[in-house]
Amino acid sequence: MLGKDNATKPIKLIERTEKYKGHVITVYEDRVDIGGREALWDYIHHNGAAAVLPVTDEGKILMVRQYRHPLGRYILEIPAGKRDGDEEFKTCAIRELEEETGYKADSFEYLLSINTTVAFLDEFIEIYLARGLKPGKVNWDTDEELGVEIWELDDLIDLIRKGEITDSKTVAALMTYAQKEGK
Amino acid sequence: MLGKDNATKPIKLIERTEKYKGHVITVYEDRVDIGGREALWDYIHHNGAAAVLPVTDEGKILMVRQYRHPLGRYILEIPAGKRDGDEEFKTCAIRELEEETGYKADSFEYLLSINTTVAFLDEFIEIYLARGLKPGKVNWDTDEELGVEIWELDDLIDLIRKGEITDSKTVAALMTYAQKEGK
Repeated sequence: MLGKDNATKPIKLIERTEKYKGHVITVYEDRVDIGGREALWDYIHHNGAAAVLPVTDEGKILMVRQYRHPLGRYILEIPAGKRDGDEEFKTCAIRELEEETGYKADSFEYLLSINTTVAFLDEFIEIYLARGLKPGKVNWDTDEELGVEIWELDDLIDLIRKGEITDSKTVAALMTYAQKEGK
Repeated sequence: MLGKDNATKPIKLIERTEKYKGHVITVYEDRVDIGGREALWDYIHHNGAAAVLPVTDEGKILMVRQYRHPLGRYILEIPAGKRDGDEEFKTCAIRELEEETGYKADSFEYLLSINTTVAFLDEFIEIYLARGLKPGKVNWDTDEELGVEIWELDDLIDLIRKGEITDSKTVAALMTYAQKEGK
């Protein structure tokens, strides 16, 4: 196996300097020791999030259309949101589904987890499959500009293949669900 | 459709302030107008990256084991790396496969694209399927601590389901490939 020894080299943090305390992130510059050599790396801390793949009794998918500032447009994605403090990820998933779509669900089953950007960000998202959906009343955060839409899984997979759905949690959740269901 | 009008509200950037010029990112605070109301949002710029899902003639997958500082450990992922300047994503994919694994490939086919973290980061990754692999010589960046391993697709899918592979580009690529191949 190539580089087997290289891939076990110990890496140590020497010093962490806070560079920016943001609204949902904190940005640091880390000085690290890589087996005797020093390097400076960016490190961004995020408190984590949960996302939900909500599947209707007819097998359709509940999606949200939301403005995403870094992309400068509204995009189609699964419901998701940041954890409050040290909230359990599943509790966060249940809360965000209801806040963003108004729907409650009979069951929340763990689907998968992702780290969005392993090179410089510790953001971690747990994704749940929600079934037994019951419509209710939405409760949007003041900063959320979104709409709720119901889609066929096949059409969403087509949009991923065409590069029209690119949000990493949404792609990971839909493709993992499709693979699991043999779709 | 719930919130249809809400999801078309115009959002305008009023002012952008640079907060940190990092090693692979630049961090800004953006003041935005959301249909008459003001908000402050974090915005992180990244130059984009390419990733490669390298499939051997036997249908196995070439993976790299790499130290990822925000996670504090070595993880298993597909080969990937940042674009040099305004380099084409496909050129970047071809270069990174060879730099990280030593392998060249006969064909690079577009598989999918992801935006890793749509809430506050513009990082965009194009992912290519590489076939017709030919081993060669590795050429690691000084900051890369990695090893190369060959895996069965089924075993990688198990590791995703168990939460042991969480890197978003790797999950998205493997699951999209598995769904495409009917695995």
